Amino acid sequence: MLTVGESIYALATRLFPICRSITGNGVRETFAILGELLPELTLHSVPTGTKAFDWTVPKEWNIHDAYILDATGQKIVDFKQSNLHVLGYSSPINKTISLEELQKHLYSLPEQPDAIPYITSYYKERWGFCLSENQRQSLEPGDYKVVIDSELTDGDLTYGELILPGQSEKEIFLSTYICHPSMANNELSGPCVTTYLAQWLASKDRKYTYRIIFIPETIGSITYISRNLEQLRNNVIAGFNITCVGDDRVYSYLPSRQENSLADQASLHALSHLQPGFKRYTFLDRGSDERQYCSPGVDLPVASIMRSKYGTYPEYHTSLDNLDFISATGLAGAYEVIRTAIECIEANERFRINVNCEPQLGKRGLYPTVSTKKKAAIVSNMMNLIAYADGERTLLEIAEKISIPLWELLPIVNNLKQANLIDVLDEFPATA
Amino acid sequence: MLTVGESIYALATRLFPICRSITGNGVRETFAILGELLPELTLHSVPTGTKAFDWTVPKEWNIHDAYILDATGQKIVDFKQSNLHVLGYSSPINKTISLEELQKHLYSLPEQPDAIPYITSYYKERWGFCLSENQRQSLEPGDYKVVIDSELTDGDLTYGELILPGQSEKEIFLSTYICHPSMANNELSGPCVTTYLAQWLASKDRKYTYRIIFIPETIGSITYISRNLEQLRNNVIAGFNITCVGDDRVYSYLPSRQENSLADQASLHALSHLQPGFKRYTFLDRGSDERQYCSPGVDLPVASIMRSKYGTYPEYHTSLDNLDFISATGLAGAYEVIRTAIECIEANERFRINVNCEPQLGKRGLYPTVSTKKKAAIVSNMMNLIAYADGERTLLEIAEKISIPLWELLPIVNNLKQANLIDVLDEFPATA
Amino acid sequence: MLTVGESIYALATRLFPICRSITGNGVRETFAILGELLPELTLHSVPTGTKAFDWTVPKEWNIHDAYILDATGQKIVDFKQSNLHVLGYSSPINKTISLEELQKHLYSLPEQPDAIPYITSYYKERWGFCLSENQRQSLEPGDYKVVIDSELTDGDLTYGELILPGQSEKEIFLSTYICHPSMANNELSGPCVTTYLAQWLASKDRKYTYRIIFIPETIGSITYISRNLEQLRNNVIAGFNITCVGDDRVYSYLPSRQENSLADQASLHALSHLQPGFKRYTFLDRGSDERQYCSPGVDLPVASIMRSKYGTYPEYHTSLDNLDFISATGLAGAYEVIRTAIECIEANERFRINVNCEPQLGKRGLYPTVSTKKKAAIVSNMMNLIAYADGERTLLEIAEKISIPLWELLPIVNNLKQANLIDVLDEFPATA
Repeated sequence: MLTVGESIYALATRLFPICRSITGNGVRETFAILGELLPELTLHSVPTGTKAFDWTVPKEWNIHDAYILDATGQKIVDFKQSNLHVLGYSSPINKTISLEELQKHLYSLPEQPDAIPYITSYYKERWGFCLSENQRQSLEPGDYKVVIDSELTDGDLTYGELILPGQSEKEIFLSTYICHPSMANNELSGPCVTTYLAQWLASKDRKYTYRIIFIPETIGSITYISRNLEQLRNNVIAGFNITCVGDDRVYSYLPSRQENSLADQASLHALSHLQPGFKRYTFLDRGSDERQYCSPGVDLPVASIMRSKYGTYPEYHTSLDNLDFISATGLAGAYEVIRTAIECIEANERFRINVNCEPQLGKRGLYPTVSTKKKAAIVSNMMNLIAYADGERTLLEIAEKISIPLWELLPIVNNLKQANLIDVLDEFPATA
Repeated sequence: MLTVGESIYALATRLFPICRSITGNGVRETFAILGELLPELTLHSVPTGTKAFDWTVPKEWNIHDAYILDATGQKIVDFKQSNLHVLGYSSPINKTISLEELQKHLYSLPEQPDAIPYITSYYKERWGFCLSENQRQSLEPGDYKVVIDSELTDGDLTYGELILPGQSEKEIFLSTYICHPSMANNELSGPCVTTYLAQWLASKDRKYTYRIIFIPETIGSITYISRNLEQLRNNVIAGFNITCVGDDRVYSYLPSRQENSLADQASLHALSHLQPGFKRYTFLDRGSDERQYCSPGVDLPVASIMRSKYGTYPEYHTSLDNLDFISATGLAGAYEVIRTAIECIEANERFRINVNCEPQLGKRGLYPTVSTKKKAAIVSNMMNLIAYADGERTLLEIAEKISIPLWELLPIVNNLKQANLIDVLDEFPATA
Repeated sequence: MLTVGESIYALATRLFPICRSITGNGVRETFAILGELLPELTLHSVPTGTKAFDWTVPKEWNIHDAYILDATGQKIVDFKQSNLHVLGYSSPINKTISLEELQKHLYSLPEQPDAIPYITSYYKERWGFCLSENQRQSLEPGDYKVVIDSELTDGDLTYGELILPGQSEKEIFLSTYICHPSMANNELSGPCVTTYLAQWLASKDRKYTYRIIFIPETIGSITYISRNLEQLRNNVIAGFNITCVGDDRVYSYLPSRQENSLADQASLHALSHLQPGFKRYTFLDRGSDERQYCSPGVDLPVASIMRSKYGTYPEYHTSLDNLDFISATGLAGAYEVIRTAIECIEANERFRINVNCEPQLGKRGLYPTVSTKKKAAIVSNMMNLIAYADGERTLLEIAEKISIPLWELLPIVNNLKQANLIDVLDEFPATA
């Protein structure tokens, strides 16, 4: 049987070849595969031209083939070799042009001569090809035939949504994006990790309701918010934008605009105990859908737990961000931290010790009878937890106060509940 | 005439031999001596079986003699040599047993082979002897006669209470414990220093009422709180748990659970000006009666000013914590800091300069006529005090703000009062 | 045409020879010159004996001549050479005395043997001469004729006031002092820089009303406050005490008593972007009219942006603080920082982006069409400004949050206003 990391990696491998964009058949092919793993995933279609706040859903883009033939008729650039070769949202073209003319439509990276860059032009109609700088330098003067068999037509923006009801209608919100073509860390890692988080959440008792969405970046999050604003505002107590969760280098944290929301506190608690060497960014370093979720009029508590953050690693937005750049362990590590942050929120509650002074734990068998260092730590944690169980602090705040992972306190909390020593005052605290 | 440190040391010397425990005649013998110094000290008796929140007052323990005879009849362990030789609250025993059987009832410290450990078993009936590891290693196989002439009977928990009324019914609370047998820093220093603080308080004008108690640790504080909870909650504005105040090593501070109460601020103010090298602990390092006083349902502002804190020095809870470990200067130093913290609270008030702009101090003779560096500092302190005498800050807060010991500001405050330049808004501020 | 620094320096040169004090003709001569540059400046006369809170306006002091003749009739100390030679507020004298008697009336600085000290005795009648230590040491035994042709008579305290109305009746308050004789940094720099700030303010559109006063230090500010207290309390949202703004050494900041007022935030914002090496003092280092403005009963938000602060440089209050010690660039530098702090307050407002999610800036042409590093920074600043345009933060707070000078954000704010993307919620925020 596969580990969770291996399963996520296998899913990424299967989705990798598909040519996704912010709309089109590549997105729907992707959902067909995700739907096998998440049967309850509901697809929504939003027609071209639909208004979403300041934005409008664009035309749907589909592409069948694209290539460049040199003067000898040899196919020197081929979409079927790498879908990064085509400028995203390229309009169709089919003509023979000089090298000089062709150069105006080529994109390459002089600093990374082996890499094909990933470039798009969603909101201005253009056509173009992306290729390595090395290949570009080798092009000889002469005529080239350029063919892009694409369509820009009225159609739909497609997104997937999965609502997993919990005891409370208060929600934890997970968002990831499915608009990038063949790249691995940014971005197949996000939807793949999110799929397995959703499977895990579907299989367990849930205190909170989970709203899990797979959308195209920016236009997708804006469209989604425009259709769900009141619900999101009223119910979301914590959210995570899941992106760049596949490589093995660092762990990264980027706060919500609020900076100290429950999502932020749970993220920091999980990261600082599990991956204390994580890199801490500020909201000024943002660059994904938290730009929308955390915008002033929306202001959701959405934080990001990542591996190597978008924009910070050399392979970012090139053909080098491939399946070799991510790994089963890289994916599993991020999965584990995000799952732990969610577990911290699920287990969070506000309670109060219901006796004055310290309870006499000996008569209740709550002191270990065999004395070891580990047992001594448990007693110390129990006494500290009781000392701060004042009805004002949440469990997450107590865990931070006493510098112990929340998950190590849970057996103690259960013992105290069974001994009827604590009263739960707030089962669903919306703040830490 | 003796210095205060010498007087305290002399009291400790007198009390040292008595075999105290959480109940019993040793406690009452101790009170007989304390009562000579504090005639107003009132003793309270709480019968065995009395409920105190989650706890029950245990049986009273009294011991007359205890020893071990070896096979030759020689007394090799003798309670009369050191009352630490008997496990505290030992049940009676009188029989002859093998060395193998005896070993199950012996307690020693392999890491400190010369020290007799201090061990108790208040809530589980056991018998046992404590001895040095060296002596234990020298025991030869054979029969041993073990005799513990003790009684565990219904009786009383005894504590002492001294209420010194002040102008205000708001209280400053001093608590110390009298349940340890022959040990010096932890614990005879606490009741001895507290006795002399009580004498000093009894002899002076008091703004606040003083509640001073001498109790057995843990069960005593819980019992006391259970009988006085409303009074304590309503009136105590600052409290000090007085323990480990006898040696010459460091000064230590342990905060209340509130962390920033008046008791904390006064303690920090006194320590940082008198003993700036003091060691600062957190509430997570607690281990004495603040565990009860600061528990969530009680939540009194009780801080600790100590010398070497319990649990941190090698002699702790062994026969090495003897009269050589403490000294007159060690005791006097702690006495001085605690007295100063109390004086800071007594002198604390909230006042306001009653003229707009700076007053013209020259025409009132409040500027020194001879100019020296010391006088310049006094003028600077006076002007700074006036600048912050805004009716919001207390004197203690002003002293902190301008980094001058509160006691150096008092002559200035008096001058300004005599010049009718300040109005007292709150004579008894319950916070700093 | 002169630069602003050169103009300010020229004004200082012109005012330098005048013998000013806290009252008298020197003050009025000074105002005659300032009035040429500020025709709207209104003079106010407050008679001797007028009460001002705890103070009384003193007699007016005027001096015509003063000198010491040695036994040979040679004029060895001459007020006409330097008006610092006379103890400020000296009573008249005309007699011949021995060197021994003369010494009691001489003031010099052994540590700075070349400097004539600046000494005054406003509130105790005395006479005296100030001279260099070198000259003092050279005095031979014998008779000396001392002449001080001065008058202490009932008269007036004179101050200048300029009110420049703005759209709001909320005020920005500038205060400087005109009571020092021939010294340059402390103090001609203050009134000279303030004069040019007033010219600049008079020439521009103003959101706020400006209250600009030229007063004698201490008695002048106290008198002014006593006559305008309600107005000042109700309207002043930020104030600056302008002093020591002429030399080329450091920049200095001294906070208001409130420490975090709008004046403080604007000062720190301007200094940290324009002169990041500035020296930061605390309110405990105060020594000028903020002592009155920030006193508890008055409590105005008055901060100080300075060059070398009074009391911290060796030339302070001596003849060495002359026109060589200040410079056009030194004056211009301080002028620039204070003007920038004022501009930050003028431009400060509280606004809110009026679309949910990020606006689509491309369709509005708000993205630069040519991509350069500078343009990328502008886009980044624009997106960050939008992200924090939440209706709670002011522009000054946003600028601090995103670590960009407020003035670099103003073109962006204008663009967003023209695009109708932001709503101004508070045009005149009284706090940062």
